[in-house]
Amino acid sequence: MDKHLQAAIEEAKKGLQEGGIPIGAVLVHDDKIIGRGHNRRVQKGSAILHGEMDALENAGRQAAAIYQKSILYTTLSPCPMCTGAILLYGIPKVIIGENTSFKGEESLLSDHGVEVIIMDDKQCIDLMAKFMEDQPALWNEDIGK
Amino acid sequence: MDKHLQAAIEEAKKGLQEGGIPIGAVLVHDDKIIGRGHNRRVQKGSAILHGEMDALENAGRQAAAIYQKSILYTTLSPCPMCTGAILLYGIPKVIIGENTSFKGEESLLSDHGVEVIIMDDKQCIDLMAKFMEDQPALWNEDIGK
Repeated sequence: MDKHLQAAIEEAKKGLQEGGIPIGAVLVHDDKIIGRGHNRRVQKGSAILHGEMDALENAGRQAAAIYQKSILYTTLSPCPMCTGAILLYGIPKVIIGENTSFKGEESLLSDHGVEVIIMDDKQCIDLMAKFMEDQPALWNEDIGK
Repeated sequence: MDKHLQAAIEEAKKGLQEGGIPIGAVLVHDDKIIGRGHNRRVQKGSAILHGEMDALENAGRQAAAIYQKSILYTTLSPCPMCTGAILLYGIPKVIIGENTSFKGEESLLSDHGVEVIIMDDKQCIDLMAKFMEDQPALWNEDIGK
């Protein structure tokens, strides 16, 4: 198991324990995590703190040169908002735990030259499958449905 | 002058007074502002609180049906991140103060059926022109350059 994907999964699990949506992410530069986060819709009443956004926010203000040599790990395929954030900052590589539960804007990322790797990770799939079954309304809210 | 664009401009000015980046936005539903915000990169050390994102965040958790009948007003053409947030929530109409200083992802919005209106507003243009001249490094940081 990739240690950084595992860190993103730990974030997702933390979110679930807090009563939130189990999606986690970490931003990695030079093989070091510079920002970690998880979806905080429930915890903070937030409409914008998806896991990826929370990781970016927790990384703080970074220079473009840092983003441009970073990798974003996320447990779930990124929605349009998180995809846009990746494109804004020119993050060149995104490693995605799974895209079975939800397929986001991977092709928009690829079209802009972002390297996209799908790990098809069973832990990630199981976390989301159970959550989507348990809380379909909350999940729909999170993706604007 | 459109009262809601004026509210977005007031937000932008508030940001400037706080030492921040002068971009403001309001989310309007049924002709009422349900969220207002401005860029808070400087004020909160935030990488994600662009004006549009701050307005969405301050609107709180809304049902899809609300977003789908809302209009987002923003003083400046939206970047990829804010564009993605608009697409995530299915906001059908975006009114943009100006796109002379910076042209964002308007075509991505249009391609997805979002109505985009450019107001070419002099107040908005002047605010950004002065800011970009005064603080080019901060502006570049805000757009990932």
